[in-house]
Amino acid sequence: MTQNIYDQPAFFEGYSRLPRSVEGLAAAPEWPALKALLPDLAGCKVLDLGCGFGWFCRAARAMGAAEVHGVDVSENMLARARDVTTDEAISYAREDLEQITLPPAAFDLVYSSLTLHYLEKLERLMAEVSRSLVPGGRLVFSAEHPIYTAPSAPGWTVDAAGRKVWPVDGYLAEGPRTTDWLARGVIKQHRTIGTYLNLLIGLGFTVTHVEEWGPTAGQIAAQPALAVERERPAFLLVAAQKGAG
Amino acid sequence: MTQNIYDQPAFFEGYSRLPRSVEGLAAAPEWPALKALLPDLAGCKVLDLGCGFGWFCRAARAMGAAEVHGVDVSENMLARARDVTTDEAISYAREDLEQITLPPAAFDLVYSSLTLHYLEKLERLMAEVSRSLVPGGRLVFSAEHPIYTAPSAPGWTVDAAGRKVWPVDGYLAEGPRTTDWLARGVIKQHRTIGTYLNLLIGLGFTVTHVEEWGPTAGQIAAQPALAVERERPAFLLVAAQKGAG
Repeated sequence: MTQNIYDQPAFFEGYSRLPRSVEGLAAAPEWPALKALLPDLAGCKVLDLGCGFGWFCRAARAMGAAEVHGVDVSENMLARARDVTTDEAISYAREDLEQITLPPAAFDLVYSSLTLHYLEKLERLMAEVSRSLVPGGRLVFSAEHPIYTAPSAPGWTVDAAGRKVWPVDGYLAEGPRTTDWLARGVIKQHRTIGTYLNLLIGLGFTVTHVEEWGPTAGQIAAQPALAVERERPAFLLVAAQKGAG
Repeated sequence: MTQNIYDQPAFFEGYSRLPRSVEGLAAAPEWPALKALLPDLAGCKVLDLGCGFGWFCRAARAMGAAEVHGVDVSENMLARARDVTTDEAISYAREDLEQITLPPAAFDLVYSSLTLHYLEKLERLMAEVSRSLVPGGRLVFSAEHPIYTAPSAPGWTVDAAGRKVWPVDGYLAEGPRTTDWLARGVIKQHRTIGTYLNLLIGLGFTVTHVEEWGPTAGQIAAQPALAVERERPAFLLVAAQKGAG
């Protein structure tokens, strides 16, 4: 089973205080770009892989989705999601995404935000996702960008000339990376953009958009600390469509 | 017009001495991976954008292509290509790839090796490429990887802990980068993977493979200096198919 870092008290406490945990999607600067990749949700059945506190599940309903199912491995997060959800068209379930079995041809959209880079067995999950989508159904996800996950020492450093740079090494060495983020020993899985895309292509998806996300000029004006995110992307956004065949 | 660095004497002299210039495709470590992306060339009409000395044009004929047309901006390179080509099914022409007009539905494969990152007006060229392919035709290209082209100081550096790292900055700032490679002031155009792929998708291509190239274990065993290429990819390889519509 995937490391369930979100149920470790220190991590959960830290995560719960992040702006995107307190304020939801409005505090996630990549959300407008991710939202732009969504199909029209009116009447859709939606699955959210790694739903956390359920912010996207509730937003999807507000955008017209008929039913939304959120799954997550974290009991803590699901408990809070249920606490703040009264909509009966939204359901939540605790699932290990590396073991999950999905119903066939059940969803019009499978969505996942900043979850897939925690999973070792992504091939298995993506095959389930492909099976669970209706023909022509959509997959939209974000994950940590491989430039962000690759380094053995992931943090800004200063070169000999005084430039602030992001120190890439190990880019083609896919596999686990242990970092300290909110808690010690958080394990992420580094994989290249090519690996993500070729996995989808091999499952019969058509890739429809690939975005190495960075903040807009307007976002930087409102929040100058975001500027550094244009120096090296932290997030990869992908949209794909399941073949109609 | 694109900077024609290949016709500057100092650059051309240096370039002519590179292993891939002297020995051809066998000395290009990414060639086996690029070759694996090619369709069956038997009977195909092929266009090579940035054909240089014509190594690929001749290889394509050896792989069964019916006709191969190579274009390049460099008079020096075309002169040498013509000198060593006796095959009448191979033709060469001098063209500025930013101004070129291609015949409609004329080619089964458009190929380009390490050329597109020199071009400012890639959108225009790719629209021509799309038009010039038959329905279902293929585009296979390599370009310098954006991790390689992004940095303001593109060279290995050592961080405070003594790690050899590749110093990424400016990744999302697309546009020209001036470097010293074989000659001073070589201008390349940095663009992200997302930009390359979304351009193709927008023109009706289906992306069929994306590879952030690195040497195999066998290649590193034979040539240990290649090992560093697994730390940060220098080449991006892409295959796409023109919609059959």
